[in-house]
Amino acid sequence: MNLILLDPSEIAADHSATLSGARATHICKALKAVLGDAVRIGVIGGAMGVGTVTNIDAEAVTLQCALESATPDRPRVDVLLALPRPKVMRRLWAQLAALGVGQVILTNAEKVERDYFDSHVLQADRYRPLLIEGLQQAKDTRVPVVSIHKRFKILVEDDLDGLCPQKRRIVAHPGGGPIARALSTAGEHERVLIAIGPEGGWNDFELVLLDAHGFTRVGMGPRTLATTTASIALLTLVHEAIRQE
Amino acid sequence: MNLILLDPSEIAADHSATLSGARATHICKALKAVLGDAVRIGVIGGAMGVGTVTNIDAEAVTLQCALESATPDRPRVDVLLALPRPKVMRRLWAQLAALGVGQVILTNAEKVERDYFDSHVLQADRYRPLLIEGLQQAKDTRVPVVSIHKRFKILVEDDLDGLCPQKRRIVAHPGGGPIARALSTAGEHERVLIAIGPEGGWNDFELVLLDAHGFTRVGMGPRTLATTTASIALLTLVHEAIRQE
Repeated sequence: MNLILLDPSEIAADHSATLSGARATHICKALKAVLGDAVRIGVIGGAMGVGTVTNIDAEAVTLQCALESATPDRPRVDVLLALPRPKVMRRLWAQLAALGVGQVILTNAEKVERDYFDSHVLQADRYRPLLIEGLQQAKDTRVPVVSIHKRFKILVEDDLDGLCPQKRRIVAHPGGGPIARALSTAGEHERVLIAIGPEGGWNDFELVLLDAHGFTRVGMGPRTLATTTASIALLTLVHEAIRQE
Repeated sequence: MNLILLDPSEIAADHSATLSGARATHICKALKAVLGDAVRIGVIGGAMGVGTVTNIDAEAVTLQCALESATPDRPRVDVLLALPRPKVMRRLWAQLAALGVGQVILTNAEKVERDYFDSHVLQADRYRPLLIEGLQQAKDTRVPVVSIHKRFKILVEDDLDGLCPQKRRIVAHPGGGPIARALSTAGEHERVLIAIGPEGGWNDFELVLLDAHGFTRVGMGPRTLATTTASIALLTLVHEAIRQE
């Protein structure tokens, strides 16, 4: 927990916030904060700043919050992900948020099993704490926007331009070119959408549909990676390709 | 399992191999192979090839093996990793092997807890199957060489030049420059060693010692990632930076 995130509703009119549970434990046990110490805080969806410890008791810590004026920019990368197995998805939420994505668009595909969509890991009350865990790791406040789409064709043909108007779109597929090359002409504020297929890959129909909607094929070389590893690797390469020094 | 790996001892003089357990199940259930079908195989530490199914019974599958002449090159990246928590390390083995590393050099550091070294996940009979799982995912036969070092200073000062004679050495540290730049002049066959610190980072002494032994500091931008995510991200960037088209 490199940043302690607070919900806006937790901050009182006098800028104090009283935290219990995991965050209070973290402040006392991991950070070993005492009265008067400052800890890094952020408001979910808002600014970062510092919280000065004004009270500690057995169950709660009170902070006096001083926030910066600016909210961090939303990460410039969105991900369109063929829904992986629930066990994999459960672990991926925090990692996606830590790596930095503006949107997580989950979709069906031929090689996605239908019953994955019934999993608890797609319920907002389950995944939101995992997204926030990732933000607290990476020191960000912007919770990725999540949408879930059971029909790939309708998503790509009808909904995607509304969700992600950006023209800079890439799809991971074996044999595709380097990501850095595909994004070498991306503008300074341009957003990128990357589509990541299921274990076993996109089928021909899905690839043709993505081609027709402006996705350039990119790849990472000859090694075949599992969904978690591949997703982290691809998002890393996209961020690096558009990173400004 | 995108490649079925066999131990050299499993291949008989007539080039047949009889497999049971997970690999037999995979051939029958996942690949749905029938008599006469060919499946991709590899010999641990050796060549890849095809195995033609010559017999299937309730518990075993027999393959007739035809191997290529060449053994895949050892991945050109070695990793020096401050030992993470056992739970993290257990998941990391397969991912390291899948991403491709020639050596895994595990070390102590100030922020590594001593008792991590007592974990079962550092026993070869525990981690070797996980490394092989990663190779089967990524279609490689070369098992990373693992060594474990409880004394960081002795490792870096006395042992590292023997383990990793390469001069191209980088260390991940916040504020470091892009990996692609640090490796932009790497020769075509040159090996790279990347040092990845513990949660909380290397301390000043460790950094100075790494500096003195030729490690250039590299970074990935402002986000702080957990060990697993960071390790995957860093190895991905190193591989991309030295990838030949």
